[in-house]
Amino acid sequence: MRIAVLAGGVGGARFLRGVRAARPDDEITAVVNTGDDVTLHGLRICPDLDSVMYTLSGAHDAERGWGRAGETWRIREELTAYGAEPSWFQLGDLDVATHLVRTRMLDAGFSLSDVTAGLCERWQPGVTLVPMSDDRVETHVIVELEGRRRAIHFQEWWVRHRAKLRAEGFVQIGVDEAVPAPGALAAISTADVVLLAPSNPVVSIGTILGVNGIREAIASSPAKVVGVSPIIGGKPVRGMADACLPAIGVPVSAEGVGRHYGARSEGGLLDGWLVSEDDSADVPGVEVRAIPLLMSSDEATAAMVSTALELAS
Amino acid sequence: MRIAVLAGGVGGARFLRGVRAARPDDEITAVVNTGDDVTLHGLRICPDLDSVMYTLSGAHDAERGWGRAGETWRIREELTAYGAEPSWFQLGDLDVATHLVRTRMLDAGFSLSDVTAGLCERWQPGVTLVPMSDDRVETHVIVELEGRRRAIHFQEWWVRHRAKLRAEGFVQIGVDEAVPAPGALAAISTADVVLLAPSNPVVSIGTILGVNGIREAIASSPAKVVGVSPIIGGKPVRGMADACLPAIGVPVSAEGVGRHYGARSEGGLLDGWLVSEDDSADVPGVEVRAIPLLMSSDEATAAMVSTALELAS
Repeated sequence: MRIAVLAGGVGGARFLRGVRAARPDDEITAVVNTGDDVTLHGLRICPDLDSVMYTLSGAHDAERGWGRAGETWRIREELTAYGAEPSWFQLGDLDVATHLVRTRMLDAGFSLSDVTAGLCERWQPGVTLVPMSDDRVETHVIVELEGRRRAIHFQEWWVRHRAKLRAEGFVQIGVDEAVPAPGALAAISTADVVLLAPSNPVVSIGTILGVNGIREAIASSPAKVVGVSPIIGGKPVRGMADACLPAIGVPVSAEGVGRHYGARSEGGLLDGWLVSEDDSADVPGVEVRAIPLLMSSDEATAAMVSTALELAS
Repeated sequence: MRIAVLAGGVGGARFLRGVRAARPDDEITAVVNTGDDVTLHGLRICPDLDSVMYTLSGAHDAERGWGRAGETWRIREELTAYGAEPSWFQLGDLDVATHLVRTRMLDAGFSLSDVTAGLCERWQPGVTLVPMSDDRVETHVIVELEGRRRAIHFQEWWVRHRAKLRAEGFVQIGVDEAVPAPGALAAISTADVVLLAPSNPVVSIGTILGVNGIREAIASSPAKVVGVSPIIGGKPVRGMADACLPAIGVPVSAEGVGRHYGARSEGGLLDGWLVSEDDSADVPGVEVRAIPLLMSSDEATAAMVSTALELAS
């Protein structure tokens, strides 16, 4: 079986651990959002790729949810002492090494795909890890700040403002010119199943789908497409989908997101849609199944994944 | 009184602490060697400027002699785990923050002088700190390595090979085109006294003197020029001057270095030359004085400096 998974960061990483627990590694390709990427202090930072890489290798901080276990923050304190802005980003010391290696390779002319493959030689995430695009795409959030309407980088909105500023909209800068990274389209078009991880439908999955050709590849793939709702009981389990969905006019509910993705038969994406056992969803043209959705352990997540694969077959 | 000090890294920094202990800060300008600078892992590293900056602010590791007190090495371990070369450079975590700030400012178009002034806003070294040049100058060492004659960066020779490879010569790449940084020439030409710190005569003082116009500025300055021997009892107190001097045909002795600098009356640099009380030196045309030279405390160093200033007056 060949499985392509569209995934964001922390939630996507956790979901992928379940996919690995359910199926052999060599069946799995993860196409990961890079719209949250940002350059800070001269370092190119790819939060979602790193979350997936660290989490799949077990090097992640399971309690905090992101970054490396045993992380320290000395460089961040130093940068603050220098008055180097921005100071709001949580830049871990171990993480800085990853960013240094990445930035140096990118500066040397390697593509983000090459860099990711290089980093994965150390981390051995098991699955094939592919950025959605080697081109620069950056999600900005339209907000009102200090009396003015502005677009701020997603990281600034999420990390600095904790998504407390109302999002009026999202702009994925560069997405119109971005082409899929090598392997991304092939993974989708040769897949037996495409899974949409329970990642943010707007700034994670939505951004991946915005890259030229990815939505079309899914539509024309012989694969069955099954999504997993990131909304349980009207709330995201983690993250800030509840602050994103209203900005694009989508109700914060399993049904709302399911209808947003839509049925393949009607030009949408989904063949199947997994929602929490506590939710119900009517998505015309899509087979909806309600099961326990909490990713409390790799085994629980693997059970979810098995249901998704069942729904696809 | 106006004092210009030509200085390298660790020894120069210690000497400058003595100058500060002897005279008010606002009289002192340090013109610092940048020939040891290197770009590693995408970071621009200026070992001598940093040594002076950290040491004058008291943030240095007095025991190790270089770098920051309380330094840690996590990033270095991470880079090694990634297989990122070179792994021989001692890249401290706190230091990385300095390099990030510097690299980012340089990339943004600021000169090394501007960057140094910016970093000094935090460190408050007291003296005016000026790089010898804003242009890139890099000292390479001619060695025989793996059966071939090659030029390797000074840092590779010193840090990786501990100066154990015989130096056949030195090449200061870029020095012919380098012009003094703003303030360097003025500091020399308006000085009452120019002091040559007991830094390496080849790769520190020698490199500074190689920058276009600096030797001439000293020659034509009304200032008296007094040097302090870095060689005591035929050996450098620290560093690797004993591995450098033979490559340029200079005896490893207080007299040898004094004669290498030479008397101003004969087209050289010196009016006065301080040597250790255990040494003797005959340098034609130069007033030589033998005193205790060990920089064991700021007070001891200040006494040295006072003698140098006396010799100049």
